[in-house]
Amino acid sequence: MSEYIEHDKDGVSVGLVEKRYFTFAEPPDAMILESNASLGPITIAYETLGTLNEDRSNVILILHALSGDSHVAGYYSEDDQKPGWWEIMVGPGKGIDTDKYFVICSNIIGSCIGSTGPASINPSTGNPYGFDFPVVTIGDMVRAQKALLDHLGIEQILSVVGGSIGGMQVLEWAVRYPDMVVSAIPLATTTRHSALAIAFNEVARQAIMADPNWNKGKYYGSEKPNLGLALARMVGHVTYLSDEAMRRKFGRRLQNKNDFSFNFDADFQVESYLRYQGQKFVDRFDANSFLYITKASDYFDLRRQHGNDSETEAFAKAKARFLVISFTSDWLYPTYQSKAMVKAMKKNNLDVSFCEIEAEWGHDAFLLHNERLSALIKGFLDRNLVELRKK
Amino acid sequence: MSEYIEHDKDGVSVGLVEKRYFTFAEPPDAMILESNASLGPITIAYETLGTLNEDRSNVILILHALSGDSHVAGYYSEDDQKPGWWEIMVGPGKGIDTDKYFVICSNIIGSCIGSTGPASINPSTGNPYGFDFPVVTIGDMVRAQKALLDHLGIEQILSVVGGSIGGMQVLEWAVRYPDMVVSAIPLATTTRHSALAIAFNEVARQAIMADPNWNKGKYYGSEKPNLGLALARMVGHVTYLSDEAMRRKFGRRLQNKNDFSFNFDADFQVESYLRYQGQKFVDRFDANSFLYITKASDYFDLRRQHGNDSETEAFAKAKARFLVISFTSDWLYPTYQSKAMVKAMKKNNLDVSFCEIEAEWGHDAFLLHNERLSALIKGFLDRNLVELRKK
Repeated sequence: MSEYIEHDKDGVSVGLVEKRYFTFAEPPDAMILESNASLGPITIAYETLGTLNEDRSNVILILHALSGDSHVAGYYSEDDQKPGWWEIMVGPGKGIDTDKYFVICSNIIGSCIGSTGPASINPSTGNPYGFDFPVVTIGDMVRAQKALLDHLGIEQILSVVGGSIGGMQVLEWAVRYPDMVVSAIPLATTTRHSALAIAFNEVARQAIMADPNWNKGKYYGSEKPNLGLALARMVGHVTYLSDEAMRRKFGRRLQNKNDFSFNFDADFQVESYLRYQGQKFVDRFDANSFLYITKASDYFDLRRQHGNDSETEAFAKAKARFLVISFTSDWLYPTYQSKAMVKAMKKNNLDVSFCEIEAEWGHDAFLLHNERLSALIKGFLDRNLVELRKK
Repeated sequence: MSEYIEHDKDGVSVGLVEKRYFTFAEPPDAMILESNASLGPITIAYETLGTLNEDRSNVILILHALSGDSHVAGYYSEDDQKPGWWEIMVGPGKGIDTDKYFVICSNIIGSCIGSTGPASINPSTGNPYGFDFPVVTIGDMVRAQKALLDHLGIEQILSVVGGSIGGMQVLEWAVRYPDMVVSAIPLATTTRHSALAIAFNEVARQAIMADPNWNKGKYYGSEKPNLGLALARMVGHVTYLSDEAMRRKFGRRLQNKNDFSFNFDADFQVESYLRYQGQKFVDRFDANSFLYITKASDYFDLRRQHGNDSETEAFAKAKARFLVISFTSDWLYPTYQSKAMVKAMKKNNLDVSFCEIEAEWGHDAFLLHNERLSALIKGFLDRNLVELRKK
């Protein structure tokens, strides 16, 4: 997410939230992954907001993107300067209204912000997994989330919501656990990466692996591959914006208005922006997690996994109502990809709403304040809650 | 240019060509660059094809892109396996017909394929310049080419032709030396980089500079920053293709058709392609030259340099007839940028033809066999030759 873009501070916050942990798949009951490797024990960091109602009909599961975490909204403490990553969407009276809904958000496995990932201790060695961590898939991430929901006693989800890699998890949830998912909101996402998206991820991964500090993933306790991770993040940020977004945001504006430096400093504001984003990222993210999560997103292929290479067949398993949202300037997962999934959903007579939102911020748009987006999500959730209660 | 794409072997080759060298700006007459730094002596590697006619009216100056060189067509020796980089366009009977035209192609300064650049010996130290090489601009490159043409006794150029960064030089020639340039063919280019193009270049440069072997540009005689340069080239290759080009060329095809590797090998063909392009590039290109030439392309801004920030004012200086060509799938320099320059040319009552060619190969399209492109260029050159002789 782009923290360089000013977030809207308006709206009431849900206030203080608590980071919780759930551990499962403890030996000898390790989880068998899609790769056939086994992983366990597995810890998931999660957060809940709002109150679960008596008939347990108000659960919203929010799924985060590449570098997100379980901290979706609110603050950890009174002194906390920064709220969760989707504060603009989640809170009292907001698009996902915590006065009405019980929100659960968990950190995906493979990540580094509380859940088990390559930086976690490998119980069989007592050292961090590093590159001994098994490759996990979007399906594995979702199965781990399912274990958390079982633990919380949740049998039905009013809506699964997420953008980008979070949107992939939304689709996976809808197809893998159709009887649990009443509705689903995949935002700015795709049923499978294009060659272009894979190409960007591969360049980013190679940037990390080319850093000598990466050391085949064994860098915990020594110098980290910060230059490589910063580069990877720079690649990411180019994809999160777009030609138009960059033109509006930066154009050819110079850092020093007078002239070029005639050296290799950051002359242009866009260069400075990318360097800043790269450098800032290394403080909060683990390079190996970046490798594993991007790989999972490249592997994700709803057709291949669930539909014998047919998008229509894949969605034949789903029962949810869908609200599919794309953004005009998103060139990582362009609207044509959302339209393809909508077409496949409709062929299965699923109840689908689709909206392409005019937005100039590229792929990042789903994380930014947008009244139309909030209103769409709010209306969709409310209708689903009413329908569910009628039953 | 993408050598992974099969080049068309059809057509007659111009045959054997010779690499020549011209040295100028020898002390005390160093060239004063746009940065106010001085550079000298300067050597330019060049190649000529065809025969200069008596009235010297058949000169075509071809200008190369980032990683090109003076070797535009033909072979250096009988054993040579590979012709010059624009063999499909330049030769007897081809789009640029060496039976009719006298073709000159020179390696730009700042490059590493025969012309003075950061890998050249700095006469004041006896060692390679490295990062002591001054930042050169597109204008400096063109002024060096002018010195070569003066040396060759050429006073009028029937056409300057070039794509991408070569196209920037074409525009610079037309505006800087209007009385010499009868016609100009800028292909797949822009009057100034968008923020997106700068962003890609900046990521590529940071990849090189993050490689510890880069050593602030002092790596000659020791380990080269091959990992960084390969990464930079990978970034480049993403921009040379496009979403659609990649989908057609690679899609999600796997290297091993059976399944994913579930490790960090190149699973997808697009990953393998990028790794191959990166690795191959380091054998033939210098990392510092990559830094300097991309910087020159980012600095290039015809409006700023020649038009007080007005594209129309910039082209007020030009007198050439123009054939502007863009390609539908080029997202590095999209058609809207060509259209903007055409509009500015027309406002100056210049004789302009514009063509957007339907091509699926992205920015690389200008280097690939395309009958329409060859026919357009051939027709345009022939008309100009006839007009010139009428005078």
